[in-house]
Amino acid sequence: MGDAVLAGNKVIITVAINGGMQQDRDGAVIPKQPAEIGEAAARCHEAGAAMIHVHARDRQGKNSGDRGIYSEIIREIRARSPILIQTTNGIGVRRDPATGQFIWPTDKERLGLLDLEPQQDLFGIAGGSADFYNPEGGYPEEVPYVNSPALLKQTIKAVYEKGSALEYEVTEASALHRLLRYANEGLFDRDRDNMWLLHGGGFGATPPIARNVLFAIDEGLRLFPKAIWGVTATGRDMFKIVTLGLSLGCDLVRVGFEDGIHLPDGRVARDNSDMVRAAAAVAAIYGLKPATVAEARARFRI
Amino acid sequence: MGDAVLAGNKVIITVAINGGMQQDRDGAVIPKQPAEIGEAAARCHEAGAAMIHVHARDRQGKNSGDRGIYSEIIREIRARSPILIQTTNGIGVRRDPATGQFIWPTDKERLGLLDLEPQQDLFGIAGGSADFYNPEGGYPEEVPYVNSPALLKQTIKAVYEKGSALEYEVTEASALHRLLRYANEGLFDRDRDNMWLLHGGGFGATPPIARNVLFAIDEGLRLFPKAIWGVTATGRDMFKIVTLGLSLGCDLVRVGFEDGIHLPDGRVARDNSDMVRAAAAVAAIYGLKPATVAEARARFRI
Amino acid sequence: MGDAVLAGNKVIITVAINGGMQQDRDGAVIPKQPAEIGEAAARCHEAGAAMIHVHARDRQGKNSGDRGIYSEIIREIRARSPILIQTTNGIGVRRDPATGQFIWPTDKERLGLLDLEPQQDLFGIAGGSADFYNPEGGYPEEVPYVNSPALLKQTIKAVYEKGSALEYEVTEASALHRLLRYANEGLFDRDRDNMWLLHGGGFGATPPIARNVLFAIDEGLRLFPKAIWGVTATGRDMFKIVTLGLSLGCDLVRVGFEDGIHLPDGRVARDNSDMVRAAAAVAAIYGLKPATVAEARARFRI
Amino acid sequence: MGDAVLAGNKVIITVAINGGMQQDRDGAVIPKQPAEIGEAAARCHEAGAAMIHVHARDRQGKNSGDRGIYSEIIREIRARSPILIQTTNGIGVRRDPATGQFIWPTDKERLGLLDLEPQQDLFGIAGGSADFYNPEGGYPEEVPYVNSPALLKQTIKAVYEKGSALEYEVTEASALHRLLRYANEGLFDRDRDNMWLLHGGGFGATPPIARNVLFAIDEGLRLFPKAIWGVTATGRDMFKIVTLGLSLGCDLVRVGFEDGIHLPDGRVARDNSDMVRAAAAVAAIYGLKPATVAEARARFRI
Repeated sequence: MGDAVLAGNKVIITVAINGGMQQDRDGAVIPKQPAEIGEAAARCHEAGAAMIHVHARDRQGKNSGDRGIYSEIIREIRARSPILIQTTNGIGVRRDPATGQFIWPTDKERLGLLDLEPQQDLFGIAGGSADFYNPEGGYPEEVPYVNSPALLKQTIKAVYEKGSALEYEVTEASALHRLLRYANEGLFDRDRDNMWLLHGGGFGATPPIARNVLFAIDEGLRLFPKAIWGVTATGRDMFKIVTLGLSLGCDLVRVGFEDGIHLPDGRVARDNSDMVRAAAAVAAIYGLKPATVAEARARFRI
Repeated sequence: MGDAVLAGNKVIITVAINGGMQQDRDGAVIPKQPAEIGEAAARCHEAGAAMIHVHARDRQGKNSGDRGIYSEIIREIRARSPILIQTTNGIGVRRDPATGQFIWPTDKERLGLLDLEPQQDLFGIAGGSADFYNPEGGYPEEVPYVNSPALLKQTIKAVYEKGSALEYEVTEASALHRLLRYANEGLFDRDRDNMWLLHGGGFGATPPIARNVLFAIDEGLRLFPKAIWGVTATGRDMFKIVTLGLSLGCDLVRVGFEDGIHLPDGRVARDNSDMVRAAAAVAAIYGLKPATVAEARARFRI
Repeated sequence: MGDAVLAGNKVIITVAINGGMQQDRDGAVIPKQPAEIGEAAARCHEAGAAMIHVHARDRQGKNSGDRGIYSEIIREIRARSPILIQTTNGIGVRRDPATGQFIWPTDKERLGLLDLEPQQDLFGIAGGSADFYNPEGGYPEEVPYVNSPALLKQTIKAVYEKGSALEYEVTEASALHRLLRYANEGLFDRDRDNMWLLHGGGFGATPPIARNVLFAIDEGLRLFPKAIWGVTATGRDMFKIVTLGLSLGCDLVRVGFEDGIHLPDGRVARDNSDMVRAAAAVAAIYGLKPATVAEARARFRI
Repeated sequence: MGDAVLAGNKVIITVAINGGMQQDRDGAVIPKQPAEIGEAAARCHEAGAAMIHVHARDRQGKNSGDRGIYSEIIREIRARSPILIQTTNGIGVRRDPATGQFIWPTDKERLGLLDLEPQQDLFGIAGGSADFYNPEGGYPEEVPYVNSPALLKQTIKAVYEKGSALEYEVTEASALHRLLRYANEGLFDRDRDNMWLLHGGGFGATPPIARNVLFAIDEGLRLFPKAIWGVTATGRDMFKIVTLGLSLGCDLVRVGFEDGIHLPDGRVARDNSDMVRAAAAVAAIYGLKPATVAEARARFRI
């Protein structure tokens, strides 16, 4: 919505390359180790992505909140390309090897990712609690995904103190009202010029349905008219929602193997960079080119 | 919407008289002990309510899942009036006396309420996890409120096996998609003739805003066109949302001290029956009369 | 939406007392002659209306664009009450006595109403062409209702030159985009502080359905965020839509025998003032009082 | 949406090659004479179109309702390819050579197109009156475009009696409610298996905006869930709306020089077949192939 930096018909493409738990499947290869991630990031940058959204894995490929691994990942990425690096404190869920039950990381572990060395460029956070459901992403059952007000508030404060930008993952329109309340409480300026909303279909109970994502987008534009706003979705309908966002003039789209592995035509992508290229192809129909890293930096004020 | 039983311009008024945690405030007196509840129920029935939604308290007035107390409550209510009795497995939250932290009842404790003796008439359940926020209802801070799929599924199965009706509390439109998924999985018939949705504004992060409640109502009518549907809201805006629902032809409205204490004109009600009378007065503006217990029974097929 | 003048929980009630063609029916008596109109206006003012929307009739009660009759009407109203007077250049349709076909007034006749003596206070205009359909309002068949760009543009220019306010009757969301185009062409300032939109359900093909009126309301708020906005609807659902508008925080509601004769409870009103009282009663539920003439004048900057 | 015939990932591409008034411009050459039209149709068929939507012109290239010319056009098309032929009784507007004013064809002239010899395959009709505005299509000023109920009703009746399919051009969501009313009056079966809706952005006052077209699409799916539905738009945004439709699973897209001359990348197409190829390329992104004439015939039940 009219921002000087992105006015030149640009859209920021973000690639969420791995997620916390997703495994190789149907031919899609998930980057898990730091060097693999660094190489994947470079290929995605080459294909048009200005930002990578990344989760760490341990040596067995399991979800990890280990800050050392995160540091290694950041170094591997930066060694190969200037792509912006975003982490999220939605580390992802694990299974207890004994019981098979899901275990969620503690708030302490999650907040630990705010202090990496070297530092990531951008941060992400879920907009509140929900029932997480993403069968195509490796979460076959619905699980309550708790994001406490304490976690949210500490993250918001920390990220804005660092001078970075924070992505609020909006899987329900209600999350926007929570953010408005936090803004009214003084936690942040609702008109700050790098407020960032990511509207996602198919992360909670709501399937990636145009009507529902549009409702959240419109609520977002109404409550935070200056926000940078993006769209994504899980599963086979990812590009349906990405297209919807582009048709409505979004600033950013997110694709990648964390959320889905299918290209718009239903084929399985082999590499995350295939997803980036597909996003760029749809963006071209809307007269949009991928924003460069420099353009994305300017828009995020970092 | 057209249902023979309620076609004669009737609306079911439900009164949620106490909630699990709400305390006396500003002149509003919350019924807590079984005999008080029985008397309050009779007054509400006299005022036009066909159903009471009730939570148990211990002798100190604190939230309780004790089945003995529930039994006593049911007996006290039935001794005084034929009003329908509904419990919910959203027992409500407690505070740990040592730490002051919120403690939520376990699924086991919550499921226990499905087997009371004598049996309640109707059942309620939240439609999924959310961040509960109801400062006017005695919950000053937002707290994650987890309703696991296991809890939901067991409740749905148990209630329908009993031949009763189950109210799904919809605080987010996404809950409707979860229910649709459960129906598609065979857990219940989406066309069953006593499917029951309660749309509530102001229970989670979403404030009681007409646009948002309307979106959920519309999604509900689209996904479950045969459902009995009702509306409510928390806090001072309760009657704004109740009135919107009545103007749109809802089947049921819920008022009462669990959700708010203010009458349409802003005054604090002294007794739950004041809320019922106010609901009946607003209903009359739209040509609707309170459904009798017999009419409500017929509509719920119990 | 927040406007200092109306911030004190006020809503402007307008009463469209007769329309161009509506006849007495089912007990509702339509004021037609100037003195009758003057008396009806006074009763409506007494009941809470700050504005009357009026059409002239000839001595036989037939639709008329006669400026002399309009002058007489204005004098009769002003002799009895300070209520604001609005005319519209939607004079209304007539029947050819020979053929029974509908005849629409010419643009010349319609524009004539811009220069009455004494002058009316406020003006109204349809937002574009549509198929008019209002079986309960005396138009049993759908008829194309042409409002040419020339008519619209001349009216906009003339009214704003007079320093008055112009109501745009929005029966389709598309009309808002036409107005935006006119604003972009320099015909008026889209941020002018007395821009006035009236959203109506049931005037064209769209029945008075909440979803559709809400879509237009939201488009209006998006395109003209500073506008004074009101709601109305034709037929038995008038108060359903009026309630919707009040629940969403509208500035103005319009009721009256031009659009419908049924009170919220389905009874037929005898007098337009019954409709005004019913609107005030619903407004009270939303904590709103009828704006006085002085408050309405301040809001319309006249 | 699920229809057996088109389930195999097919989309019907229709090409509106000329319109009633559009002239050659910016390098785009509009086919006007019967032989030119026949050749253009063959090229479009070759490129993937299953249907041509065509208007007749006189020898000077001016809009014409002459049935002889239409017959010649149909013969010229059929001599070269099996592409389906659709006419519309929206013949288009002309200019009075004396006054320069627009003149619209009479209902009689428009209804004449229902009886051509040889007969066209399919028919189209506007869904009601609107203010037509298409500056890029050769209509520089907005003009009221009247489609009377009599014209609509006679057309519906005649087309369904012929056993053909009728496209309703929906430029406003309200048109859908008119159609629903006609269905309720018995004019047609709302569940007929070749009910056909074309959602168009930018034909009336509404610009080709995703939110508005989506609203109409959603209303269409809600009111006529079995309909064949397509999308199009006028001007430079044609492919933005076409792409949105494809991403959402539409059954049909319409492109061509009647509505716009720009390809997705902003270049001007030289030939209508360039537009068809572009539509097929966008469809391929979503895994869709152009339906053959035989597949389209099966879907339209002709």
